[in-house]
Amino acid sequence: MRPILYLGRPFREEFIEKISEIAPDYQVVTELDPNSAKNVAISVGWPEEYAEELLSGELRWVQALSAGVDRLPLKELSKHSVLVSNASGLHAISISEHVLGVLLAHFRGIDTAVQQQIAAEWSPKTIQYRQLAGNKILIVGTGKIGQQLAVSAKGLCLNVYGINTNGHVVEGFAETYSMNNLPKVIGEMDIIVDILPETKETYHLFKKSVFNLMKEGAVFMNVGRGETVIEDDLSDALMNGPLSFAALDVFEEEPLPSNSPLWKLDNLLITPHIAGLTPNFEKRFMEIFLKNLKSYINDQSLALNQVDLAKGY
Amino acid sequence: MRPILYLGRPFREEFIEKISEIAPDYQVVTELDPNSAKNVAISVGWPEEYAEELLSGELRWVQALSAGVDRLPLKELSKHSVLVSNASGLHAISISEHVLGVLLAHFRGIDTAVQQQIAAEWSPKTIQYRQLAGNKILIVGTGKIGQQLAVSAKGLCLNVYGINTNGHVVEGFAETYSMNNLPKVIGEMDIIVDILPETKETYHLFKKSVFNLMKEGAVFMNVGRGETVIEDDLSDALMNGPLSFAALDVFEEEPLPSNSPLWKLDNLLITPHIAGLTPNFEKRFMEIFLKNLKSYINDQSLALNQVDLAKGY
Repeated sequence: MRPILYLGRPFREEFIEKISEIAPDYQVVTELDPNSAKNVAISVGWPEEYAEELLSGELRWVQALSAGVDRLPLKELSKHSVLVSNASGLHAISISEHVLGVLLAHFRGIDTAVQQQIAAEWSPKTIQYRQLAGNKILIVGTGKIGQQLAVSAKGLCLNVYGINTNGHVVEGFAETYSMNNLPKVIGEMDIIVDILPETKETYHLFKKSVFNLMKEGAVFMNVGRGETVIEDDLSDALMNGPLSFAALDVFEEEPLPSNSPLWKLDNLLITPHIAGLTPNFEKRFMEIFLKNLKSYINDQSLALNQVDLAKGY
Repeated sequence: MRPILYLGRPFREEFIEKISEIAPDYQVVTELDPNSAKNVAISVGWPEEYAEELLSGELRWVQALSAGVDRLPLKELSKHSVLVSNASGLHAISISEHVLGVLLAHFRGIDTAVQQQIAAEWSPKTIQYRQLAGNKILIVGTGKIGQQLAVSAKGLCLNVYGINTNGHVVEGFAETYSMNNLPKVIGEMDIIVDILPETKETYHLFKKSVFNLMKEGAVFMNVGRGETVIEDDLSDALMNGPLSFAALDVFEEEPLPSNSPLWKLDNLLITPHIAGLTPNFEKRFMEIFLKNLKSYINDQSLALNQVDLAKGY
């Protein structure tokens, strides 16, 4: 029986043909059952309902459809020596445009104008406005998304700082600091953007003690993972200071339940996990996957975006 | 009787002191009556109700509080050889941030998310998203505001083109075209931004025949003057194509009447003439005015921002 290459979302025929050309010995399928799951060698996406069969079967490589791989059983995959790659880089422009769009919309009062239009209300005097240019932005996470955001933010005359594990220098950032130094620098920042993956180290990183270090009037955004923020502590910082505004695109529970008190906070903007939505996703994703598929078929290595299973990203 | 320097809005005491230092022979007033209006030599802003007294009196110079001077009786002022200067440049960053904020908010579906939040509605699948980077933007008007917008738009990887009177080259634009060539190039543009002042030449420039030349799906914004657009023709282009979206910050009648059908167009964003709202306006305005006041006291010339009364800007 030929090994199975499973596609976890429908791709256009042209891409399926290219896959078959590169990997003619594999059977390409888009549906699984408990029997076929055991024969999957390459999985695009993670079909959670067949986790057991996949892990106990022929699985050699998982190509994730997202940048974050926290939904995958990394320990188990590591134990079975399964390779994992992610789709990092793909969403960089989208997320960067989302972050700057949210910031500009808020700083220029456009969010308020959208609400006023619903009531056919012309009230320029009730609209608060600030200038974005000249502010200090701290990008927490200096991977591909953070780097793209740094370039675009600089284009809008923001002063750009970054946080990464050990504070190594990254192109496009005025300064980068280590995670250990986050508490020392966060108080100087006007805007803090969380783009962190979910790992042991980042779980509930943004909590009361960290919000309390932020500057009076600071702005906080999360486009990383909901688990990196304690939502109750964020609410408190929005209601009682120091935050003037926050925007969340990700949550501990998604969809955010309709009875969540977060919906009603008037200085919190909620977006339904849309920051990473990317036009032409298929084409861009296939640029990564087909390169990896070629190198995997050639020598079982991955050319791009291999995940370090111990680190989780 | 000392000549009067009239201030058409309240300025902080520190600025009034500086004015008196530079122009000790003038009486600085913030209120007028029909008698005192005749003695105004320098007017900051244009107190329309005293137009007759001002024009028949001692008036020598009007320093406008805005970039546009279309509310001033330019012909009459010219007849009486009154100098006019504007506040151009002051609002450049604000307007530039407004334009990009509106574009990003729309391209990334943030405007829709703001509306959904009101109903505590989590509906990522109903949110439309596009990428802003890589689009062609045509900036109609390459003055100070247009130039600032060009720089910021380039920072977001837009391809930036400009229109001005005679097509002269302007720093920051990939190409600039003359107003005569507008119909020839407008069909290639994804986004058209109108930043025009109101003049004889720009009155109702954007009308049915021009909208009809735009690309299917094009986006139109007006942050210049309402009189440059025929609103009914814009509505038609939004309802029946080719426009996918428009955003207006200025209108022929302001405030926009609450029964205007524009409020209800779901692919039109209305903002209440807020694009130019500028933090620290007083301080920035005084940087222009005090320089002009020094040169005026010195030799009756204006150092900055003198308006050509024949051209109207």
